[in-house]
This record gives sequence, structure tokens and C-alpha cells, in this order.
Amino acid sequence: MTLDTGLVNLDDVRAARERIAATCVRTPLLTAGPDDDVHALRVKPESLQPTGAFKLRGATNAVAQLGPDERAAGVVTHSSGNHGQAVAYASRAAGVPCTVVMPDNAAPVKVAATRRWGARIVTVPVDERFIATDQIADETGARLIAPYDDPRVIAGQGTVGLEILADADDVDTVLAPVGGGGLISGVAVAVKALSPSIRVVAVEPELSADLAESFAAGQRVTWPAELVARTSADGLRADVIGELTWPHIQAHVDEVLTVSEAAITEAMGYLARRARLVAEPSGAVATAGWLTHPDRASLGRTVAIVSGGNVDPAAFAAAIA
Amino acid sequence: MTLDTGLVNLDDVRAARERIAATCVRTPLLTAGPDDDVHALRVKPESLQPTGAFKLRGATNAVAQLGPDERAAGVVTHSSGNHGQAVAYASRAAGVPCTVVMPDNAAPVKVAATRRWGARIVTVPVDERFIATDQIADETGARLIAPYDDPRVIAGQGTVGLEILADADDVDTVLAPVGGGGLISGVAVAVKALSPSIRVVAVEPELSADLAESFAAGQRVTWPAELVARTSADGLRADVIGELTWPHIQAHVDEVLTVSEAAITEAMGYLARRARLVAEPSGAVATAGWLTHPDRASLGRTVAIVSGGNVDPAAFAAAIA
Repeated sequence: MTLDTGLVNLDDVRAARERIAATCVRTPLLTAGPDDDVHALRVKPESLQPTGAFKLRGATNAVAQLGPDERAAGVVTHSSGNHGQAVAYASRAAGVPCTVVMPDNAAPVKVAATRRWGARIVTVPVDERFIATDQIADETGARLIAPYDDPRVIAGQGTVGLEILADADDVDTVLAPVGGGGLISGVAVAVKALSPSIRVVAVEPELSADLAESFAAGQRVTWPAELVARTSADGLRADVIGELTWPHIQAHVDEVLTVSEAAITEAMGYLARRARLVAEPSGAVATAGWLTHPDRASLGRTVAIVSGGNVDPAAFAAAIA
Repeated sequence: MTLDTGLVNLDDVRAARERIAATCVRTPLLTAGPDDDVHALRVKPESLQPTGAFKLRGATNAVAQLGPDERAAGVVTHSSGNHGQAVAYASRAAGVPCTVVMPDNAAPVKVAATRRWGARIVTVPVDERFIATDQIADETGARLIAPYDDPRVIAGQGTVGLEILADADDVDTVLAPVGGGGLISGVAVAVKALSPSIRVVAVEPELSADLAESFAAGQRVTWPAELVARTSADGLRADVIGELTWPHIQAHVDEVLTVSEAAITEAMGYLARRARLVAEPSGAVATAGWLTHPDRASLGRTVAIVSGGNVDPAAFAAAIA
């Protein structure tokens, strides 16, 4: 991190790239644009990671930096989704014990998906998940790996940006979905450091547009949890941007777009047909930002990050049919 | 090619790798195995190529070897499927005129998919497609790029094998689907040259099992076209193995497996859930060979090639629901 700002920098992201190489997939860039210019839209399919989402990068980078004593004590996190799976997988790959705290109303399929990577699951009432996580950390010495407000996690997600620029030297705009802000923060750090003229644009569901409002207001705005819960993009239901991700976004992100639920569904079908990808709603949000942009040509050659592909098969089938 | 045998060799495949690098996607290996050993099955997702299938490799390698006069005269091929799209795309990328002969009963969606890459489409009665292709070649000087019986095409498909071995040093078995035999031939050349102990296994639908019969008989056996037309794996409906691919298969392939239609559908769902891939029926055949193998453990650590992902969305939705 840069000491004077406390922000993650390019060196952190480059170091993360080395640490995650053995565990994460080096995803390719795929063409998805219209027939007359297949490079108008390219997509970065993080849905192809072993756990089905980019989250594995940040989790792997965090676990890799534990010292010997910390490794023995293990890690703990709270998540009912892709971050929990990522920490579980990264921990198993590194031989580190892992506990994931999940709300007792989490979908059984998500509990199973986390358990399959060998994590210990602790279920608690949804309101107690943060307290329970802290308690486990205190009692066992397990280190917390937060979903986005952790410089190791932000740096790990930033490797997506390094790879995009390594594979394409003609990019005008990078579109990334935003929930807590870990992915967009890391990607923006890497992209702006290497190629400041590339526009970095955050995309979020209009039903969970706390970042768009924060961006306009110049300060973090919290949306009621019951409002953000309405979007199908369940990976992006954070009700406020992270405390640590916010200054990264202020420093490096050019714009925030919002997309409708219909656009998200349309983008899932587009990605299935044009790039042969299974994307979850959150994973299709950035592509939706391109598909429904009122002035698409102004984006130029665009890369949209497909952040994940963990979707119920029936819901996916309905979206593409 | 090795002069004494007329077979494609490792040097041909290595040369192809250089020629295709700018046009084809360097696909990753993805984990797809069961929870307790995610490396038991890995998949090579050729469905991620710009045209949705491995065919782009061979077509690109063939087009890249045209001389200046040949480039001006252009190329011609006959195909209603992935090979036609591949030649069209490779030709456009190289700035070479391209004609694709298609049967007049081809599905409109396939005609459109080929036309979108800028190829001239000539539709003829299905029985006349070979004659029409030869005639165009004679009249225009266009060079034929055959779907599999062409050493340039076989060498191009073999790059899939090079990439598998570059990404994994612990493979026991490689499973590849077989129609005309171009993919399995090229892959077997590369894999056996670099690592002779790896088993290379061809997989075909039991409704189109002409290679299994040929392999058992020690000579090429033709199945009636109306029989092979029954399989959903429309990319694998060749009624006899190729004249040139057959000696490659005899020299390098260890075994031929067959799979049921139900197994193919099951594998499409498995690939969607476990690897977040949209696979067409042909593309799921190798994975089906692993899923339904009577003694799966005997295969050891396996890589299944997902050869393509061009499937009607409604058919795909039905398969995974």
C-alpha cells in the first residue's frame, strides 16, 4: 500500500498476481461484440474460476500472506455467497483451516456450495453474523478475511485489470460491476496506473444504486437493506460502498452506470449466445451496462467483466429461453 | 509432415501454434471434478473461441499458409456447421475472400451464423454440395479447406493438445470427441509426442459409432447417413472417419468410447453447473464419456475437451433444467 494514502497500489496488485497464479485461472478475453466489430465488446469471464467468481483472487491473495502462526489458527469470514466459497477454496488449497459464518436463512444450495470446499460452517441468526464472526476470531485466533474492505482482497481482485491490459492494447473503457467495491477498486488501481486514459466505469443495478448516489453526493450513502434486496443480482446487494473501497473509487473511477433488471436478464442471454458463458445476474451487470448504454459508441472498445456464474440452473434457463 | 508416413507431426503442430496466436483464444484448463478432487476432471473449453468451436484453430492454420496468389483467389469450403463459421472467420481475419457452400435445407440460424463473418454463401441441393464446391474451386481458383482431411487443419486442431500439456503436468487421460477425426488426430499427435504415457481416448455418440466399429475392425467402416443423423451431437455426424485422420488415429489413439444421448444431455447440465460453460451436444460428448464411464477411476486425472458451444438457447435451456 501507498503509505501516505493508505490505498492499494500497482505493486500490491503485481505481487498478488504471483501469489494467486497456482490457485486461480488465468482467464482469457473473449470477443462478444457485434458481427461488424467483434472487438467492440470483449468480456473477461471470471465465471470460469474454480469457485465460479472473481472472489477467489482476493481470497487467495489474503490467505497467501498469513504467517506461520496465523496459518495454524486459520481464517474466518461471513458470507452466504461467492466470497465464502472463495475463502473456503483458497484455504483448502493452502492447507489452512477455515470457518464460514452463514445466516440461518441462507439457501441450502449456498451452504452446500461452501461446505464442499471443506470449510466449517457456523449458522447463526442473520443479525448476529458479524458478532459471531468477531467472537470466533477472538476465541480461536482465526484471522478475518473481509469480503472487500481488506487491502489484500482489493489487490487480489486487481489482477483482473492486469490481465485485461496484458491481453488487449486497444481498450477504451473497462466496465466492472460493483457491490461492496472490491473488484472495481482493484481493477481501477491497476488500469489507471498502467493506462490512465482508459475509462473505468462501475455498473450497478438501479435497484441497488447506493454507489451512484454516493458518487453524485461525494460521500458514502447507505440504502435500506430491504431496498437493495430487490435486485436479482444477489452478489451486489451491499447497502453501502466499503469504507476502504470508497477512497479507491473516488481516486480512480470515472463514472457509475445503473442498469435495469430487464437489462440484466437480457445480458445473461446475450452472454450465453455470444460468448457461450453461464453468467449469474451479478455477472451480467457490466455487460448490461454496455448493451443498454444510450450512447454505446462513446464507450469505444470496451471490456466488460463477467464477475461470476453461480446461478440456479432453472433461473438461468428461464433467463435465456 | 513426416515424409515417410505422410502424417502430421509435432513440428507441424508447434508451427500452427504460432500461426493461430493472433486469431484464436488461448483457452484455459478449468476444474470440473468432484469436490474431493477437483482435478479428477478438467475441461478444455473450446466453446470460448470467437466462433464457438475448436474448428477456428485448423481453419486459421490453413488460411495462414496460403501464398500471395492463393490469398487473392480466396478459399472455399462446404459445411453447414462450425467448420463453415471457422473458415469464414479465419478468412475475414486474414483479409481473404471466402465462399461457403451450404445445403439448401440448412437451418436458417446456421446460414446466418456463417454469413455474419462476411462469407459469400452458396446454397445448393444437399447432394450437390461436394460437386458445387469443386466447381467453385475450378472456376475461381479458390482453395478448398476441408473440414478434417487436411494436414493444415489437423495440425491446427493439435494446438489444443499442446496447450493442455502446457497447463497440466499430471494428466493421465485426454478425452476428445470424434466426428471426422480432425481434433482427435491433432491432439493425439501432440500429446503422444510429448508424453507417450498419457492415454488418448476418442469419444463418440453410440448413435454415430462408426469409429468404434472401424477401430474394432481395423479398417474404416461407413455408417448409413440416416443412422448417424439420429444423434443430437450434430457436429459428430460424419458417417465414416476421414481418409487422412484414420492413420493418425490408428497410430496414436488408445481407445474409443461411446456415449448415450442421455449421457450427452447430462453432461451439458454438468458443464453448466460445474464449469459455467454453455456446451453444444457435440461439445459435451467427451465429458459424457467421463461421467458415465463404468470404471472412472481407471481414467485417472482426465482432461475432457469441450469442443464447441453453438447450441440453440431453447435446446440448451431444456437440457440443463
